[in-house]
Amino acid sequence: MKLLVPKPESTGNSLVLDIKSIEGFPVEIHPYNVKEPIPEELVDAEFLVVWTNSAANLQDAAKRLKNLKWIQSCAAGPNDVFAAGFDPSITLCTGSGLHDHTVAEHTLGLLLNAARRFYEMRDYQLKGQWPQHLGGPQPDRPKDRFTSLRDANVTIWGFGNIAKKLAPWLVSLGANVKGVARKAGIRDAFEVVSEDQIAETFKTTDALVMILPGDDSTKDALNKERLALLPKHAWVVNVGRGTCIDEEALYNALVNKEIGGAALDVFATEPLPKESKLWKVENVVVSPHAAGGRPQGAEALIVENLRKFLAGQSLRNEIAIPGKA
Amino acid sequence: MKLLVPKPESTGNSLVLDIKSIEGFPVEIHPYNVKEPIPEELVDAEFLVVWTNSAANLQDAAKRLKNLKWIQSCAAGPNDVFAAGFDPSITLCTGSGLHDHTVAEHTLGLLLNAARRFYEMRDYQLKGQWPQHLGGPQPDRPKDRFTSLRDANVTIWGFGNIAKKLAPWLVSLGANVKGVARKAGIRDAFEVVSEDQIAETFKTTDALVMILPGDDSTKDALNKERLALLPKHAWVVNVGRGTCIDEEALYNALVNKEIGGAALDVFATEPLPKESKLWKVENVVVSPHAAGGRPQGAEALIVENLRKFLAGQSLRNEIAIPGKA
Repeated sequence: MKLLVPKPESTGNSLVLDIKSIEGFPVEIHPYNVKEPIPEELVDAEFLVVWTNSAANLQDAAKRLKNLKWIQSCAAGPNDVFAAGFDPSITLCTGSGLHDHTVAEHTLGLLLNAARRFYEMRDYQLKGQWPQHLGGPQPDRPKDRFTSLRDANVTIWGFGNIAKKLAPWLVSLGANVKGVARKAGIRDAFEVVSEDQIAETFKTTDALVMILPGDDSTKDALNKERLALLPKHAWVVNVGRGTCIDEEALYNALVNKEIGGAALDVFATEPLPKESKLWKVENVVVSPHAAGGRPQGAEALIVENLRKFLAGQSLRNEIAIPGKA
Repeated sequence: MKLLVPKPESTGNSLVLDIKSIEGFPVEIHPYNVKEPIPEELVDAEFLVVWTNSAANLQDAAKRLKNLKWIQSCAAGPNDVFAAGFDPSITLCTGSGLHDHTVAEHTLGLLLNAARRFYEMRDYQLKGQWPQHLGGPQPDRPKDRFTSLRDANVTIWGFGNIAKKLAPWLVSLGANVKGVARKAGIRDAFEVVSEDQIAETFKTTDALVMILPGDDSTKDALNKERLALLPKHAWVVNVGRGTCIDEEALYNALVNKEIGGAALDVFATEPLPKESKLWKVENVVVSPHAAGGRPQGAEALIVENLRKFLAGQSLRNEIAIPGKA
């Protein structure tokens, strides 16, 4: 049996698997180039790990890997695999969990960028000007601005694994963290309220972190009405999917000073189009979908799922390929 | 007996004391304006809290407060009090500890700004350009760049209270933290090496955080020779005092690509002079001495020291006024 794993350089070294740590199965491990057709001698492979594969590579694999039984994606949402035409009888697992730490770190960085106004300091630096108003004695945690995570109310909308990684960091920095999700409850000791409590929760939010997945149910989740619930000083940080925010409504809220600012790593259309009005808005931070992009700990997921597959058990992160019976 | 405390608005609301929490002593508490002469009816005060006082106010106080026995500064280094001409027999206490959280938060922000290259994203944003090279799949923790705190070696030079606040946050983000100080030892469970081990320590440093006080012994502590010990990708973050870095040597190391970058909150001369070459260096982040500037928890320090003063005991953070016998 053969397991095909991405050659590191073909992923831009964004996935450098420690091959030694996935050995020990009755399986030959073969690195392959994720941007080229599968070599003839590997088309009898049963198992395939994918990450940053070209569409052509995946279409080629879907056609030629006749023995394929299991695909392990390293992406949280493997839309590329869905689109490639694989047989729906193949078992597909997502890479959910492999980006938690990386995305959480970027989110923390965006929050501090907003609170400490590094983006504004940069604007002054480029002009060779010292931003005196941002240095020296500063109002201590004023009620009408977001200047520190200490004592700040941070609301995380979409309380999955990334939020569970991020929330304890925020607490250690002194923030009060509350989650919003479809189902209310206590998750990892954090209070998570349901979406029908948004009105009450947003009212006291200093920073809203959005980590929602992108699907029909989350489209424009943050719309004009919900933006209007936030205090005038509140920041919006989005590291989920761009479609979850009505960008026109966000733009209007920003220019009308109805919210404090927005740090965005994702956009409805990426790259953010030249003509987008968001580029030039004061207090908008544009990050180029840079939060994740480097799966971490993929070896453990591959090993767990390969072991379970060989044992005939159900796998972690299994998801149906559309069309599956 | 009278205790004079700063009127919040006269400090730009950077010190808003909770007066209720310092009551209970046989002492009248009187707010005063730190930028104006002391009112005649308060010149018999025994105790004085100072923060962001004007030089003229302090000189006036030194002359007219004939009964003054104790000064509680909220600054870590009360050079303004030293300069005002107070009688050396007066007890002076610093505000050491009141800025730990604030400065540590700013430092964490600067580290993430450097690792996640928010400053570079900003440069692109201002030109309306999407920095494609910073988004999408990214090399996973490459050895030759500082891209994440996870698995990064962070060296903190000057391992006092700010470092003790910062270091656990860095560890929770996945960093390996080591301290450098005059005396080696274990502090708060962190390994701190002495300055004669700098050569060995710098060799594997991905980010050097400097939190040294500014005095003759730390002048140009980071000089040409020591900069040369750092890896080419290492970042320098300075939140201590600007005089601790030889800025000419730093400039040369930066433009010769001998280090990865520098995020600086302090400078030898502040505001950073127009003619400084640091403004325009690629991979320099200029922050306008913005890390601290808002004492936190001053009430507890005032209460502890007032209690001890009234009991005739030694005070916390006591420091001699120059000239004291």
